[in-house]
Amino acid sequence: MTNHEFYMDLALQNAMAMKGQTDPNPLVGSVVVNDNRIVGVGAHMKAGEPHAEIHAIRMAGEHARGATIYVTLEPCSHHGRTGPCAVAIVEAGIKKVVIATLDPNPLVSGRGVAILQEAGIEVIVGVCEEKSRKMNEVFNKFILEKTPFVTLKTAITMDGKIASHSFHSKWITSDAAREDVHVLRNQHAAILVGANTVIKDDPQLTTRLPNGRNPVRVIMDSTLRLPLDARVVTDGEAPTWVFTTSRHDSEKKKALEEAGVRVFVTDQDDRVHPAEVLHTLGKELISSLLIEGGGEVNASFFEHRLIDKVILYMAPKLIGGRNAPSFLAGMGLPQMSDAVELDDLSVEKLGKDFRFVGYPNYV
Amino acid sequence: MTNHEFYMDLALQNAMAMKGQTDPNPLVGSVVVNDNRIVGVGAHMKAGEPHAEIHAIRMAGEHARGATIYVTLEPCSHHGRTGPCAVAIVEAGIKKVVIATLDPNPLVSGRGVAILQEAGIEVIVGVCEEKSRKMNEVFNKFILEKTPFVTLKTAITMDGKIASHSFHSKWITSDAAREDVHVLRNQHAAILVGANTVIKDDPQLTTRLPNGRNPVRVIMDSTLRLPLDARVVTDGEAPTWVFTTSRHDSEKKKALEEAGVRVFVTDQDDRVHPAEVLHTLGKELISSLLIEGGGEVNASFFEHRLIDKVILYMAPKLIGGRNAPSFLAGMGLPQMSDAVELDDLSVEKLGKDFRFVGYPNYV
Repeated sequence: MTNHEFYMDLALQNAMAMKGQTDPNPLVGSVVVNDNRIVGVGAHMKAGEPHAEIHAIRMAGEHARGATIYVTLEPCSHHGRTGPCAVAIVEAGIKKVVIATLDPNPLVSGRGVAILQEAGIEVIVGVCEEKSRKMNEVFNKFILEKTPFVTLKTAITMDGKIASHSFHSKWITSDAAREDVHVLRNQHAAILVGANTVIKDDPQLTTRLPNGRNPVRVIMDSTLRLPLDARVVTDGEAPTWVFTTSRHDSEKKKALEEAGVRVFVTDQDDRVHPAEVLHTLGKELISSLLIEGGGEVNASFFEHRLIDKVILYMAPKLIGGRNAPSFLAGMGLPQMSDAVELDDLSVEKLGKDFRFVGYPNYV
Repeated sequence: MTNHEFYMDLALQNAMAMKGQTDPNPLVGSVVVNDNRIVGVGAHMKAGEPHAEIHAIRMAGEHARGATIYVTLEPCSHHGRTGPCAVAIVEAGIKKVVIATLDPNPLVSGRGVAILQEAGIEVIVGVCEEKSRKMNEVFNKFILEKTPFVTLKTAITMDGKIASHSFHSKWITSDAAREDVHVLRNQHAAILVGANTVIKDDPQLTTRLPNGRNPVRVIMDSTLRLPLDARVVTDGEAPTWVFTTSRHDSEKKKALEEAGVRVFVTDQDDRVHPAEVLHTLGKELISSLLIEGGGEVNASFFEHRLIDKVILYMAPKLIGGRNAPSFLAGMGLPQMSDAVELDDLSVEKLGKDFRFVGYPNYV
């Protein structure tokens, strides 16, 4: 690891720790180094609050003059609450700026660098670039497409089943994997299931972690079958949003709304279209969505090529059954050559289970 | 690694290299060490030929006197073609015997050691025991149960599918995994599929490797639907054995037999029972069986708890489809808590794919 990478890594660590709390802003970390000593560290912690560079420069105080600043994302060039960060860096007397990634928004990308260079500051771009890009995969999509980054999470047996033929599913994975799911929920702005899951399991869909943040609970429900006594309706733990079609019953809609549920009536008259859900969630500034659906809900997103990331918890067991539900139902892709490869696939052991993480490559 | 382990490891390497060619005998390797120099190595290479110790002692010649012999399996105490190995060791003047595992057959286990100890030879048992036991997992089962060790091999997508909903399956895995299958075939005495697989894919089920050994091809076929022009019937590459029920057509049976196929009529009048197939194969001295069936054939063995080992080639891709076939069909187990865990599960990367190997724990 070079020295540049060492300091950038610290900036990345600080940025990463804020995962889930900067929404809809990106994760950004910064480190100020003067005379081979760290004199300031900072991270963006909450939308509306200072950017990472500002925190780090403030901490550095007088030591910022003549220093090198490491920042995981290109300093902004726009006037936010604290003025453009690029200008603040110039004004602090920083001599060198090391950046992991340029701004993903093509409308402003490179502008921060230009401000710095015009002020005579040396700029290096691309240190730990891949790591920074991946850290902000949610933001990078959201800023460009205005729809949430979609992660499909599922727990399966090694034969791909999410339940037995009698729909019994407790428990597929061991404790470690089940706890990991709460970390995921903590990091997502919204969580989505189908009405069937609510009717069958009556889940809370909350984050069972100390200081956990609960995602908005999104239910796809073509005909508003969601029971009024479901815990997602009654527990008040987090907002619950239901997407339905013109086939819904308007009395039921009124009752749900009186119980505090937001009901979105989509343009469909058959099933809720997943793209419409994502479009609406984007307008509501939901930047990340965790899908914990059954096979049909999962497949509706998969077949419309709307899943950005897949996290599979695979238990080392077999259950079998031609009618036992697989995690991707739907029609499925017609030919084996149509199968969607998972790029950048990693696997790790989590207790007795395996955790696979990959990115569908829809080509 | 201690010195004992070092020499035993060499004995194991030599034994392992014979995998598939000692049938129905176990894999055994041996190393003779005198005055800290290896003076002989040997392995059992073929049923009816000398045991490993005999080869190693012959190679050592005069140097066997006063030497230590390492042998992966307890020297035999019975009179075979070359007399009991334990006696040969005594006669060669060996001073010390290091053994990985005792004979798995309780009727003779410990007898070889007793002969050696009675002759005043020092005996150490248990060096690299686990590795030796696993190496002979086939033999250890066959010698006790008189039925073949059953390995289920399958190639699946990450959602557990062996084909698309249109039954398209070429190709799930990449070259490396497909080549590995031929190594498996080379190591097995027989390979089993259902009639459906033959009708749909017309496979040869042979070992496409230089100097490859072809397993006996076993087809489960309740009503003798096996086409007379199927390659397993016409190509003459390996014996083909068909198991059928009383529902079979006797004209078809005659035609198959005239084409050189052995037809076994089982006691069943519905479907061929997998246990009966294994019982018959055992009587034919088939010690290892590789199942490459479709979901129903696989499940019939799984649900009768007849699979000893599972090898899954998992491709990093998703296909989906509620009707796309999973690798284990059948009825399936009723509750998630009934799911069969895979013990001693290992995973490795094979090209782009993952190779899982595990042992069903039926408790």
